[in-house]
Amino acid sequence: MKALIVHAHPEPRSFSTALMSTAVEELRHQGHEVQVSDLYAMGFNPVASSADFNQRANPDYCVYALEQRHGVDTGTLAADIQAELDKLLWCDLLILNFPLFWCSTPAIMKGWIDRVLVSGKVYGGKRFYSQGGLKGKRALVSLTLGGQEHMFAADGVHGPMKDMLKHLLQGTLAYTGMDVLPPFIGWHIPYITQDARRTYLESWRTRLQSLEEEAALAYPMAI
Amino acid sequence: MKALIVHAHPEPRSFSTALMSTAVEELRHQGHEVQVSDLYAMGFNPVASSADFNQRANPDYCVYALEQRHGVDTGTLAADIQAELDKLLWCDLLILNFPLFWCSTPAIMKGWIDRVLVSGKVYGGKRFYSQGGLKGKRALVSLTLGGQEHMFAADGVHGPMKDMLKHLLQGTLAYTGMDVLPPFIGWHIPYITQDARRTYLESWRTRLQSLEEEAALAYPMAI
Repeated sequence: MKALIVHAHPEPRSFSTALMSTAVEELRHQGHEVQVSDLYAMGFNPVASSADFNQRANPDYCVYALEQRHGVDTGTLAADIQAELDKLLWCDLLILNFPLFWCSTPAIMKGWIDRVLVSGKVYGGKRFYSQGGLKGKRALVSLTLGGQEHMFAADGVHGPMKDMLKHLLQGTLAYTGMDVLPPFIGWHIPYITQDARRTYLESWRTRLQSLEEEAALAYPMAI
Repeated sequence: MKALIVHAHPEPRSFSTALMSTAVEELRHQGHEVQVSDLYAMGFNPVASSADFNQRANPDYCVYALEQRHGVDTGTLAADIQAELDKLLWCDLLILNFPLFWCSTPAIMKGWIDRVLVSGKVYGGKRFYSQGGLKGKRALVSLTLGGQEHMFAADGVHGPMKDMLKHLLQGTLAYTGMDVLPPFIGWHIPYITQDARRTYLESWRTRLQSLEEEAALAYPMAI
């Protein structure tokens, strides 16, 4: 298996970084190939703009998705996007690893999604859900947060995390055709003991050992 | 009324920009004060990092929310964050105006949320939902997308837009204590006629004339 881990945390020594390192170690230990895109370390540019295209379909007016299609067709996407797209198309498993910021990814990772999931390859036309451009790949979100699990219970104040992440799990990952595994969630991370954090790392490692047998979440099929 | 419009679109002549300009014009025409943060025009930095704090609570390890609190307490937030926070605290109505990218805001606007909605002022401790730091203000999302309305019907392939936007409408805006109005949605914008777009601008203008009588969406109350 080939795995791409896209990681984003503003603190290089965070627990989120430990989840990333554990995944690299464990997946390599199992004989898989692993690439990591550490977005903060790379200084990744998250801002989608007309500068993302070395050649323009329409130099006067930027419809971002149409320029993506043109960039794919002509091989003229900006080099940083093409490099990430190559990794994405290479992988069988995509792991998005991040601290939850406002019930979603940090902006730097949102920008990776905005810029790298290009129309004309990943989505566009009839390419969505079961016909998406990333069909056959699997996606796994691993996130940490300060909040507690009971706040995201069915009757909790925020409602289920799966609903709060619908834009990401369904609207993004399942939309591209990937099979989306249940997220791995590190609850209340800043407030728990080192022992409790170690237990999380062990359960993450154990989970990574049996990913291949896991069932994906159920999401819509394209017609 | 004081209104802050936060706008983000990579194409300066987009229909989304026309929505923003219409809002500025109509709200001023009604005698309201309006400020605009045009994030692309400002070159706004969306990446939350330790560089956001001129003085650190802990120089060795960055817990972003704790540094935000320290920055608020000591008045040492980065100047670009403080300037946006001042506008946010000044306004009675916040409008987020953007094209839907992957069922959410473009990354540059996500970064505005990540960096400007600071712990210690906007949220943190018991400050959430009905006790949130922005209690008494109202929030309105106006967005454009390529998708069609039937795809976001209750029985549509994606399910209701309100559910897809739960992370933003509830997890972000309602969480800060704001009353969240139903979003204004421009469906299928790249594919409709100029006349249909003009009709959208007129209905947006009409809606802005009666905002003060609108009921907010129902979201959780803090205990």
